[in-house]
Parts: sequence; C-alpha cells; structure tokens
Amino acid sequence: MSLSVLALAGGVGGAKLAVGLSHALPPERLTIVVNTGDDETFHGLHVSPDLDTVMYALAGLTNTVTGWGVSGDTFQALAMLGRYGNTTWFNLGDKDLATHIKRTQLLNEGYTLSDVTRELCSLLGVRHPVVPMTNDPLRTMVDTDEGELAFQVYFVQRRCEPKANRIRFDGMGGAALSPGFQTALESADVLVFCPSNPFLSVAPILAVQGVRETISQFHGPRIAVSPIVGGEALRGPAAKLLQELGHDVSCVGVARQYLGICDVFVIDEVDEAHAPAIEELGMRVETAPTVMETDWDKTRLAMRILDIAESISPVDRSQG
Amino acid sequence: MSLSVLALAGGVGGAKLAVGLSHALPPERLTIVVNTGDDETFHGLHVSPDLDTVMYALAGLTNTVTGWGVSGDTFQALAMLGRYGNTTWFNLGDKDLATHIKRTQLLNEGYTLSDVTRELCSLLGVRHPVVPMTNDPLRTMVDTDEGELAFQVYFVQRRCEPKANRIRFDGMGGAALSPGFQTALESADVLVFCPSNPFLSVAPILAVQGVRETISQFHGPRIAVSPIVGGEALRGPAAKLLQELGHDVSCVGVARQYLGICDVFVIDEVDEAHAPAIEELGMRVETAPTVMETDWDKTRLAMRILDIAESISPVDRSQG
Repeated sequence: MSLSVLALAGGVGGAKLAVGLSHALPPERLTIVVNTGDDETFHGLHVSPDLDTVMYALAGLTNTVTGWGVSGDTFQALAMLGRYGNTTWFNLGDKDLATHIKRTQLLNEGYTLSDVTRELCSLLGVRHPVVPMTNDPLRTMVDTDEGELAFQVYFVQRRCEPKANRIRFDGMGGAALSPGFQTALESADVLVFCPSNPFLSVAPILAVQGVRETISQFHGPRIAVSPIVGGEALRGPAAKLLQELGHDVSCVGVARQYLGICDVFVIDEVDEAHAPAIEELGMRVETAPTVMETDWDKTRLAMRILDIAESISPVDRSQG
Repeated sequence: MSLSVLALAGGVGGAKLAVGLSHALPPERLTIVVNTGDDETFHGLHVSPDLDTVMYALAGLTNTVTGWGVSGDTFQALAMLGRYGNTTWFNLGDKDLATHIKRTQLLNEGYTLSDVTRELCSLLGVRHPVVPMTNDPLRTMVDTDEGELAFQVYFVQRRCEPKANRIRFDGMGGAALSPGFQTALESADVLVFCPSNPFLSVAPILAVQGVRETISQFHGPRIAVSPIVGGEALRGPAAKLLQELGHDVSCVGVARQYLGICDVFVIDEVDEAHAPAIEELGMRVETAPTVMETDWDKTRLAMRILDIAESISPVDRSQG
C-alpha cells in the first residue's frame, strides 16, 4: 500500500485516531493537521491544547486517565500561580507547563508555530508530522446565552454549560494555511476527518482561508469518522451543541456538517440504522467499531479507514 | 526606638539578616534593597535569584535545606525542559518557576522590576518592602582563566571553580537607582550591609549609578556585617574570591572593601583578634555571634545591629 494520508484532528478523539494512523503508516505517508482555534494565552504563555494532546499521544506521554496532559504530572506551579492571583481553572501540569514555556520562548525568538511544533515533536521522538492548521491567530468564540465566550472560558471554565447560539472564528479572514497543511492538501491521496467535534475542532480548520474550497475539490477520497455514537458524544459537548444549534443529535446530524466535503462517512456499528439517512446526503456509509480505548482499537480503525480508501478509485468517487 | 533601616542584601546571608531585621522592625521602618546583578534569563523567563531568596525567606517559604528555592518544591517542569533541549544546570523548581512565569508576564505587560517585586511580595504576604537595586539591566560578569563568564555560568554551572581575575558589571553606566532605593537612601537613619559576598552581592549594588557616592556621604551610621568567619565564607566563594583577587582571606580583607562607606564593622566573636587591624582602617569594630542558623540567631543579630546604631550619634560618627 502506498497511500498517503492527511488527517484533520482536534483534541482527544483526533489524537486517538492519529495514534492509530501512525501505527499503520510510516511518517512520510501521514500528516496530522491540528486545530489551533482553542489556543489561548495563560500566564503569558502560549498554550496549544489540541496540538499538545496530539503530540503527547504520539509521544506516548498522554495521561490516559484524563485524556489530556502528561502522565504522572503534578500541579505545583499552578498552585503557586494561584497564590500570585492568576486564574487556575485551566489545568496546566508542571511537565505540561514546560511545553508552553518552550513554545513561548521559541515563538518570541521569531519561529512560527509550525517550526515550534516540529521542534517539540522531534525532541519528544514523534516522527509523524504534526502540523498546526495555521501559523496565524484564529480563535474560536462561542456566542452563548451568557454572551460571547472565548473558547477555553466556554469549554473549561464554564464546562460547556451556557447554551450556545453560534460559533465564530475570530481572525478567520487573516489566517492562512500553514505550509505543511498546504503541502499535504496538495499531495495526500486520502483526507481523513478524525472523530473530533465538528463545530469546535473541525470547523475552525475549515475556517482557515481557502481550506473548505480546496477540500471540496480534493482529488482523493475524503473519509470522516463520526464522533457521535448511539446519539451521544464519546467526549465533550458535541451532542449538546448539535441540539443547541438545531441539528439531529445523531451521526446524521454530524454527517450534515460534512456536506460537499466528504465521500465516505464512517459510523459506529450501533448506528447502522442511520446509514440510509446519511446515504441520502450523497455519502457512502461504512460501519466500524469506532470507540477507541486500547491501542489496538486505534490501529484497527485506522487500518479500516485505509482499506476503505484503497477500495475507492478516482472513478468511483466521480460517480459517487 | 524609631530608627529606620536600609539593608543592602545579596542572597542567602542577606536573606537571613533581612528576616532578623523584619522581626525587629515594623514594615515602615525597614527597606531591603537587593542585588539584581545575578538576574538571568532562563527558558525565556526573567529569574531574579537574590530577590527571590529574600522574598521566599520573608514569606517563610525557603527551602531550609538548600537555603534557596521553595520548600517542598519538585522539578518536573525542569526535567521536561531538559527533554526539550534546554539547559537544566540552573535548578528551577516547579513552584519557583511560577514566580518567574508571573514576573515575566508582568514585565512583558510593562511593569518595572520594582512594581513586580512589590506585587509578588504582597501576594505572598511579605509586608516589609523588598526593592531591587535598579529596574535596569546590570549584569555581573566574572573574568576568569576560562574567559569572561556570565555570573550564573560562573556561580552555578561552573560552581565557582574557574580562577577569577576581575569582576565587571555589564550595563553599570546606564543602571539608575530604583525609586525605592533612592527614597530609602534619602530617608533611612541607618544603613546595613548584610553579610553578603562583597564582590558578587554588595559590589553590584555599589555599581548602580551614584550609589557609592551617596553612601560615602550617608547621614547616619553605616554598619557592615562580615560574611567571613574564622577565615572562611559561611557560604559561597567569598573566601576563594578574596584570595584570587589578592586580598587577605579574613574579615580584614572584607573590611577593606568597605573603606569610606562603612562606620562600624561587625565581626564574629571568633575573629576578635582581627579587631585592631580593622580599627586601623578607621572603622569601629563590634563583635557578635554572626552565624545565623535559627530564627533567634537572626533576630538577635538584627537587634544587636540596632543597638549599635542607637549608640552612635551623628556627632560620634563625625568624630569616627
């Protein structure tokens, strides 16, 4: 097999499939482009939560209890920052903080977020390229019943409790594709939407200048994995957001977010009954075990996606 | 008693006497001005080792085993920064790192080092004013047989092993007195040189523009405590430097560094035999137990210094 894959990922769910793909593909055949819409400055340090979740996962450092952060981390610095009057609702462990210190140091020296991510990954032994969607600021803002909230305020501080009305991407007019994203979009054979939140993880990637248009004309199979299983999000507020934003709280509601940019929609086996409704949207449907707990779950789903991709010739797709 | 005191301090020894003075004087009667010549940037963060040693001591946070850093600290972030290729020879604990993160954050927001120090001290419950000698960069450089080394490279990384030839203060032409130092110099009744290294802790303070001249004309008693006891430094390279720079390795060698800026030189009881040599320099000599291990040692020495100061009238001094 010689397919090369561009995977679009958010945080925890995306990181899991990224790990699976990294088991199934050599580094030169995989690029993982990651959402940076939830980047935030805490304590004067640049924090890139999704990039770090993916990087730590590929480095084998993930705290498997929480799904984010570094295994065995402590929170001494954060407690002290609390004494200094800083906000502490965003949990930054001591080891994790080193990542943000180093990132901020390199950014202040003039490196781009892509440069910094490449360097950090390399130093942690991550061989598959992890690429921010953009080097420019693009910030996810959630308009809620309590007013517009910066993403991390909504997501972490307010635990997604306020009712969301609309999601906006601050800076989207000026955020250009990162060079690595651009190259992967041009050269990859397959595009994979990881099972990430369509509104908070995938939509920011699509909001980068030209991305939606380019993906709508992508030359190879585009395969999305539903983050909704059995009508519930495996993690996070995807189900709540589907409901609040007026969509079906099901994999069908997710599939509708991918209209025009997806050829194959992968749903969990428990959702097989939804297949016809998704096929009506013009997508081929595949069912698979999509809940990834073990490393084998991740690899198996990745291999299944690669099998699906191989089964689709360009001719098949043009007829789809 | 209503004397007000300006204490000049370096790191560990200075911090001990500062604690003693803080037990003996209310906040409005004491200003502790601290050396910043050993400030350094690590990991993109502004580290002020002497300011922090004094601040932690006054806050009751000092790691009493090492004399520096925060009690009960861990080193998780530093280990991770090591994985990221950063230098780790300067031990920065996780709690301690929070101080440097917060300081850097505030400096980047435009606050002066004096502002930041006041804020950090206030948040840690330190009520006696701790003031950097200057808000400007002034860096101690040690010219050694291995070339000129930045202070922390000499002091921590090279453990003071290279033979020192000369000590230079980079930026001394442009470093102005901090406002708090200026005010204290004008209003304090007594000036105390804490038992700090005369070359590495006190000399940088004297190198700030106008400080040596102002102290040479100070209106009240100027009292120095020898950091050399029984011919040895209680801590650090003071004895080694005295020898390498061509001075007597004794409290007499230290006293010579204070010619023209000191009225009373306090030596340890074990050094009583050196009193005549110091008196020949034109200073009054007092003996006291100067080794501070317990809090009571610190308070007792501070009270002794205040007694000495009270015993000196301006007339006495003009005759000294």
